[in-house]
Amino acid sequence: MRLPGIPSAPERAALTPAEARALFRDGLATPTAGWSSGFTQANLIIVPREQAFDVLLFAQRNPKSCPILGVIEAGATSGPLLADGDIRTDVGRYMVYENGVLVAEPTDLHDWWRPDLVTFIVGCSFTFEAALQHEGIPIAHIEEGSNVPMYRTNVRCAPAGEMSGPLVVSMRPIAADRIADAVRITAQYPAVHGDPVHVGDPAALGIRDLARPDFGDAVTVPAGHVPVFWACGVTPQAAVMESRPPLAIGHAPGHMLITDARDSDYLVP
Amino acid sequence: MRLPGIPSAPERAALTPAEARALFRDGLATPTAGWSSGFTQANLIIVPREQAFDVLLFAQRNPKSCPILGVIEAGATSGPLLADGDIRTDVGRYMVYENGVLVAEPTDLHDWWRPDLVTFIVGCSFTFEAALQHEGIPIAHIEEGSNVPMYRTNVRCAPAGEMSGPLVVSMRPIAADRIADAVRITAQYPAVHGDPVHVGDPAALGIRDLARPDFGDAVTVPAGHVPVFWACGVTPQAAVMESRPPLAIGHAPGHMLITDARDSDYLVP
Repeated sequence: MRLPGIPSAPERAALTPAEARALFRDGLATPTAGWSSGFTQANLIIVPREQAFDVLLFAQRNPKSCPILGVIEAGATSGPLLADGDIRTDVGRYMVYENGVLVAEPTDLHDWWRPDLVTFIVGCSFTFEAALQHEGIPIAHIEEGSNVPMYRTNVRCAPAGEMSGPLVVSMRPIAADRIADAVRITAQYPAVHGDPVHVGDPAALGIRDLARPDFGDAVTVPAGHVPVFWACGVTPQAAVMESRPPLAIGHAPGHMLITDARDSDYLVP
Repeated sequence: MRLPGIPSAPERAALTPAEARALFRDGLATPTAGWSSGFTQANLIIVPREQAFDVLLFAQRNPKSCPILGVIEAGATSGPLLADGDIRTDVGRYMVYENGVLVAEPTDLHDWWRPDLVTFIVGCSFTFEAALQHEGIPIAHIEEGSNVPMYRTNVRCAPAGEMSGPLVVSMRPIAADRIADAVRITAQYPAVHGDPVHVGDPAALGIRDLARPDFGDAVTVPAGHVPVFWACGVTPQAAVMESRPPLAIGHAPGHMLITDARDSDYLVP
């Protein structure tokens, strides 16, 4: 199969979600920041039905890190957030865990799919980045063309059944005189992590070195800027790794599901 | 066993939640409107773990009618909303359904309890009634000393797995010039049904006769008042009756769980 080429930045931004998903379905695997401007990107966590109650209860108890945008029930492979899509193929790259151990990073799930798998589509802080930029707050990882840095913290999530794990956060450096604005703007998106969980001192979250994120890429924190931390939708994936179910599947960090929902759908002004 | 007497109205209002639950544990069975003033009352739906994912997903998809305040996992009988309480005894009266058919209305669950049962504690519109009264909006069923009237509607909830059913609503007559206030006040309690789903014409919801509620008691709609309908936490019980799981348990309408949470905990001003 000939892989599709990566479209240019303006082309990526202008793709409809269905067009973007078709490229990933054809085998393309690349981070999705900047794709399908205005449409909501999302995290994935996929588990067998036997574990699905614990995952959904974990999300209910940890709504800031695990906001559920949609659930594809066992037996189905599509849903209203990806019309005519296929959750087994429409993400660029997946992470497959067996008993909590990463065993594969495939570009589709045909070798792994089972009819009892339940897919949770989880909100992503990419959703409010355009709103931050629109109000003149630059996003470092977008400016640097890299993936947002994400960190495991020493904050424990509320457990649910077999699911327990650390809060995972994403970090964006914000100028000291814009932090209040960043809080105000992101608070308007409560369903996609909302306002920050922590501003400043990474050590208070148990983060030893900002230059070494657990997922994604490090970004520069310029003078006069403060690291600001938002709850991250990779949190359920970290809990799945700790709880070691027989099978669990997530997206590769940064390789998000591009949904048909619009970022503005999640704005609560 | 000698049943405890029903306390006077001021005594009922002044009881702590733990004191109220102790009376119900001792066998008292009476509607709870006006009990433990300022503390949050809640609906119950209890199902085997096998059905629990569908119930939780149904709630996630129908958050206005099924706001989850807490979940007691299989094997447990208490939780943070009822410290030192016991969900098997601490509600005045329960409704037990086998295959969707009401088979018993016991005052405790000792004959029915199984270790695989999962308890969902669901928000109740009683929570915002004190706020309405505080702003000078009288509540008919409280003034009449009866149970709030509740109706099955022709609005279908979003289904989840085996769970499907109608939206159930509670109704309060509101003076025409106070409806905007009632909307504004109840919108501040999004976790306990929030603002109304419908104002006026009962027929548009498929309600034929306000004088014949499906649950609770009819109230008078005075001249110049409009029937206003809020989503009701009996909705998951109606869906359970339709989906006919082998066993399901709810509270008797109006006989709520009195939790340790305060109504003000759910205020989002």
